[in-house]
Amino acid sequence: MKGQAIPAPVVRRLSLYLRQLEYLATDGVEKVSSLGLAGSLNITAAQVRKDLACFGQFGRPGVGYLVKPLIGEFRRILGTDKTWNVIAVGAGDLGRALLRYKGFRRKGFRIVAAFDVSQTKVGRVVGGTVVRHIRELPEVIAEHGVRLAVVAVPVQAAQEMTNLLCAAGIKGILNFAPATLQTPPDVAVRPVDLAAELEQLSFIVGSAASERSAGMQGMGSRG
Amino acid sequence: MKGQAIPAPVVRRLSLYLRQLEYLATDGVEKVSSLGLAGSLNITAAQVRKDLACFGQFGRPGVGYLVKPLIGEFRRILGTDKTWNVIAVGAGDLGRALLRYKGFRRKGFRIVAAFDVSQTKVGRVVGGTVVRHIRELPEVIAEHGVRLAVVAVPVQAAQEMTNLLCAAGIKGILNFAPATLQTPPDVAVRPVDLAAELEQLSFIVGSAASERSAGMQGMGSRG
Repeated sequence: MKGQAIPAPVVRRLSLYLRQLEYLATDGVEKVSSLGLAGSLNITAAQVRKDLACFGQFGRPGVGYLVKPLIGEFRRILGTDKTWNVIAVGAGDLGRALLRYKGFRRKGFRIVAAFDVSQTKVGRVVGGTVVRHIRELPEVIAEHGVRLAVVAVPVQAAQEMTNLLCAAGIKGILNFAPATLQTPPDVAVRPVDLAAELEQLSFIVGSAASERSAGMQGMGSRG
Repeated sequence: MKGQAIPAPVVRRLSLYLRQLEYLATDGVEKVSSLGLAGSLNITAAQVRKDLACFGQFGRPGVGYLVKPLIGEFRRILGTDKTWNVIAVGAGDLGRALLRYKGFRRKGFRIVAAFDVSQTKVGRVVGGTVVRHIRELPEVIAEHGVRLAVVAVPVQAAQEMTNLLCAAGIKGILNFAPATLQTPPDVAVRPVDLAAELEQLSFIVGSAASERSAGMQGMGSRG
């Protein structure tokens, strides 16, 4: 099954199903229904089954899914059944928080090095990772076979850093800088915009408030 | 136009269109087409027009959209034409990075206070925001009319903190803790899972690599 055949929202939900399965496994749950897999996603059991059908045949009607084997299958599909070496570019406040973030490691992502241009940051060790000068980037990428990078630099530096990453062989960039990055067609970019997430909440909360003031009842939207 | 009438993915794209408009305005661009509004989103002009039609009538055929007025309209729809007071719960590494994150303020979100239980953190000032003890939460929420909260606490504390927030009148939670939060129906939750974002990239990069090794060409997926 190839990446480009599967719609991006389905791949996104696969990550969320996997997270739900991991919660269930932690709680000792062994079997789960389609609806249980949806967790708090607010989607139907039919949608879950349709999503999973994109990747193969899992579970049995009336029986449901076995939690642990399904975790293994989903990790294999998402490519996180093995460890990915990752680098972080930018060791400012956000970059340092990401270096200390335990969630990456738990999911199979190991940050092997961080990079910055500031002499006050180069040489520091943050969350067990050494901050190195950006000029060492190509060497570290080649040495560790790194294909994924996290970009957490100021907006002015984002494109230049991206060009360096692409030239050094990076194929996937998680971008925290508020900029649209230009990359070659074989380099994927996922932007993370934390303020846009709050905006989604202000929309929901603001809409609900205007409905209440208009004398309407209830509110269906959940994040 | 009410929140629950509009599909969540459309509201999400509205945020992304707004971001694209803000980039264009920074570059001094005055007019934009539907396709230009899509930016690097990899969607069609028809989809953009269909999305916008959910919110009203904007732009004119053959003329396009005026950037600055459209920014105003989108902010009004998303509720960010006014400033929202926000609180942050958890002043660990991630919490402190969020307190220093300038993107929130730029979008109209003002973090009025942060909260923690640790005596080593309470009283500190981070990014201009004072860290207060969690017991002061209800008072601060009432005083500043806060309805949005950012939760960046360890997973074990997430539900308890959420219960406190809901009891104190919070209506929207941006959740960085790796837990599914239970909330009353009138409280919206948006989970942010940074590791799941990397997982999306490992899927794309891994799929592309297996295609290359299978002798296939090209790769359509972009984040």
